[in-house]
Amino acid sequence: MTTERFPDSPDLPKLGKAEFAAEESALREQLLARQRELRAAGARSILVIVSGVESAGKSEVVNRLNEWLDARGVRTVAFWDESDEERERPRAWRFWRELPPRGSIGIFFGSWYTRPIVERVFRRSSREELERELAEIASVERLLAADGTVLVKLWFHLSEEAQERRLERLAREGARALTPWEKRFRSRYRRFAKVSARALDATDASHAPWHVIDAADRRRRDLAAGKILLAALERAVQPLEHEPENATLVARAVAPARSPILAAVDLSSTLEEAEYRERLVTARAALDRLTWKAHERKRSTVVVFEGWDAAGKGGAIRRLSSAIDARLCRVIPIAAPSDEERAQHYLWRFWRHVPRAGYVTVFDRSWYGRVLVERVEGLASAAEWSRAYDEIAHFERELSRGGILVQKLWLHVSPEEQLRRFEERAASARKQHKIGAEDWRNRARWSEYEIALQEMFTHTSIPEAPWEIVAANDKRWARVQVLETLVRRLEAAL
Amino acid sequence: MTTERFPDSPDLPKLGKAEFAAEESALREQLLARQRELRAAGARSILVIVSGVESAGKSEVVNRLNEWLDARGVRTVAFWDESDEERERPRAWRFWRELPPRGSIGIFFGSWYTRPIVERVFRRSSREELERELAEIASVERLLAADGTVLVKLWFHLSEEAQERRLERLAREGARALTPWEKRFRSRYRRFAKVSARALDATDASHAPWHVIDAADRRRRDLAAGKILLAALERAVQPLEHEPENATLVARAVAPARSPILAAVDLSSTLEEAEYRERLVTARAALDRLTWKAHERKRSTVVVFEGWDAAGKGGAIRRLSSAIDARLCRVIPIAAPSDEERAQHYLWRFWRHVPRAGYVTVFDRSWYGRVLVERVEGLASAAEWSRAYDEIAHFERELSRGGILVQKLWLHVSPEEQLRRFEERAASARKQHKIGAEDWRNRARWSEYEIALQEMFTHTSIPEAPWEIVAANDKRWARVQVLETLVRRLEAAL
Repeated sequence: MTTERFPDSPDLPKLGKAEFAAEESALREQLLARQRELRAAGARSILVIVSGVESAGKSEVVNRLNEWLDARGVRTVAFWDESDEERERPRAWRFWRELPPRGSIGIFFGSWYTRPIVERVFRRSSREELERELAEIASVERLLAADGTVLVKLWFHLSEEAQERRLERLAREGARALTPWEKRFRSRYRRFAKVSARALDATDASHAPWHVIDAADRRRRDLAAGKILLAALERAVQPLEHEPENATLVARAVAPARSPILAAVDLSSTLEEAEYRERLVTARAALDRLTWKAHERKRSTVVVFEGWDAAGKGGAIRRLSSAIDARLCRVIPIAAPSDEERAQHYLWRFWRHVPRAGYVTVFDRSWYGRVLVERVEGLASAAEWSRAYDEIAHFERELSRGGILVQKLWLHVSPEEQLRRFEERAASARKQHKIGAEDWRNRARWSEYEIALQEMFTHTSIPEAPWEIVAANDKRWARVQVLETLVRRLEAAL
Repeated sequence: MTTERFPDSPDLPKLGKAEFAAEESALREQLLARQRELRAAGARSILVIVSGVESAGKSEVVNRLNEWLDARGVRTVAFWDESDEERERPRAWRFWRELPPRGSIGIFFGSWYTRPIVERVFRRSSREELERELAEIASVERLLAADGTVLVKLWFHLSEEAQERRLERLAREGARALTPWEKRFRSRYRRFAKVSARALDATDASHAPWHVIDAADRRRRDLAAGKILLAALERAVQPLEHEPENATLVARAVAPARSPILAAVDLSSTLEEAEYRERLVTARAALDRLTWKAHERKRSTVVVFEGWDAAGKGGAIRRLSSAIDARLCRVIPIAAPSDEERAQHYLWRFWRHVPRAGYVTVFDRSWYGRVLVERVEGLASAAEWSRAYDEIAHFERELSRGGILVQKLWLHVSPEEQLRRFEERAASARKQHKIGAEDWRNRARWSEYEIALQEMFTHTSIPEAPWEIVAANDKRWARVQVLETLVRRLEAAL
């Protein structure tokens, strides 16, 4: 079948060996030179996605690119069989864990396109499911491109006749056996072409364009791939252009200095010691039971703790994690990123801690740092923190689609209560380490944080991953709320 | 049963709440202070191993330690069910991946002791297997301790009667259900005690001593654990004492300046183009077939490439990796360690790339850097590189016991041939990037490298992981040798 996406092979003579060698030599030199610049700059990465019809020689192209490039800055990852660690996490996890760090080139042999296309070809998914998957892919690619990753999406094409000729020659010459994929797709050429064309159409974007490469002539095919990669390298060694500040951003900046959402929180609630004990014991027992039940049913939970300094996050987290069997629960404190983390999209370091099916992961601070401290302190540009709302919503939806309950908690205290606690900490030998210059600096920016918080609640309160604002002027009240919120959430879900 | 290991509970009155609170408060303050010093120094780590009889309250102790410590510097990992990614790798892999980085505390709830003990209790392993496992554990602990990790091995003990009383009370009060472990071990107290006593005896060492804690009184139990941890923290904030240079080291330093092993290599072998092509094609086809067969049988292969600068490692690796389906093969170039890697034992960054069952991983340079470049350049102390021979042999034996074929290749060229290639590189625009000051510096230290190599071959040529020295003055010869060595190795193994 010929679609506009996949035109017939141009009627060109085969490229001669000598001609190829001449072109190859020049190309290789340039590839190496640009690759060195990419690494030296350490600012952007390249992700090459290798896909296309069977027998087009994708594996040969991958080898050729590896031959041309300096191996120290390239990593090829083949995605095919899944481990249970991968199966038990959202689908995107296996790709995130293999993304190339800044300054390097990642070659994905097979990619996030493989499974949606294959499932649709074999009618194991509906048209709607395919569309939804493609929309998710488009989101991920947008997010990576915005972060400076140059996406090189290669589709290797062979006409049905050309593919058949190759398969026949393979059978005749016996150079190697047909791969399982060649056997499975041989009889489904047209359907595969149709589904693939739809996938390409839905994900062709200026920041992540598709390149369809005719694979009839191996030498032309490899040169074409190399030249596209070279062009990408040339773009990648340029600094990333920042999006101009736009009207939305300006509108956001003039939001009210108080958050109506936070203003509505009743901070006067308290709990007496006796009631506190009783409710704590009840909630703890329920949590123990529910987390084991969730484990049996392979449902995971991600709990995000955010809150004002001295709002009692630490104590609340300990009450929560000690209520769950240590075998099921892991607490991830988020501090400054490591250099491996800094070399990736900011969400990468959270993806790596996404739990396998059946476990609870508690984040002590989280990806919301992007739209809170990084925004307020100017560590993220306006373009970066503005697009983070969508990126975060996308991330949490991915978790949720992967069967993970996401519960976000904001521990809220009044400025007066915070001041009281700061002073108490400063006066106590045991608590002194919990208060530093940074806390006072953050406090001075209270109203900037309120603006950021109001926007955060507005833009990231999605049904799959709700925010619970916990009144935390009274620690006992707050701790019980935290536990009871989780109990309610798990009970509703299980 | 009472063994010397597990004495009867001392006949003490229960520790009162007030007395506990007073001790706790002082202990906690000190723990936090030392923990801050540990983090600030960033030099050493603490690994707490929590083990012992069922119902002794191990989970409560873990929670208590987490309550006392600053959560930002502690990570608790529970080892119980294994993922297939873990099952498909050597047993040690899951522990290596969770080791605490320098400056932090790791709490292992369950550990490398759990499985050997449980298997022996249920007679799924022989006495000899248990002994071998314990010897392996002792090696790992020695290696971690030498690297500065302070091991805190806690064994929580309850007498049979005390355990039974707890289980009965649990059943009576119904506070929680018995865990599956409590049910399984209840009737096997004596056997469990006997096997455990053996495990403790075999792994009690001055650098990794066992602490048996009586768990009859919860408050005393927790204070005991806290005090042992505090003592460990006090040691860990001291700089690591270096072992004195000893006679073995001196003996090593006066080894001959030429390596007899390398001198015996015939560097004159060459291959004509025609024979090269033919043998390459044959070996490539065999490798393709054998690696797929190995994949089916879940056998992995680790190939280590080392060699003189300009010996042709890069070209040989490309010939090898392009002969294997890209889905099965991964090349790991070893460059400078990341900060996450530097915060761990030097073998950690190789453990993280150990393949799942059925795959091939090619290391372009490897852990041998420790006894080559790090030794020659003085980046590792004499104590460090000297003990690395045993550490490396231990590592490779672990891989081998985990079903992985380990093949090490040294690409050998003469100093004259190296000079010729350096000069050729310097003169070629395309190859200039492959030659730098570092290469010339290394070349000037040829004889120091020969000493290091002679020792490396002598100390790390173990039957499970042989060295193959490849004569590489002729590139064609070398490339064919590399492929044919792998073919022979795989054929013999499959």
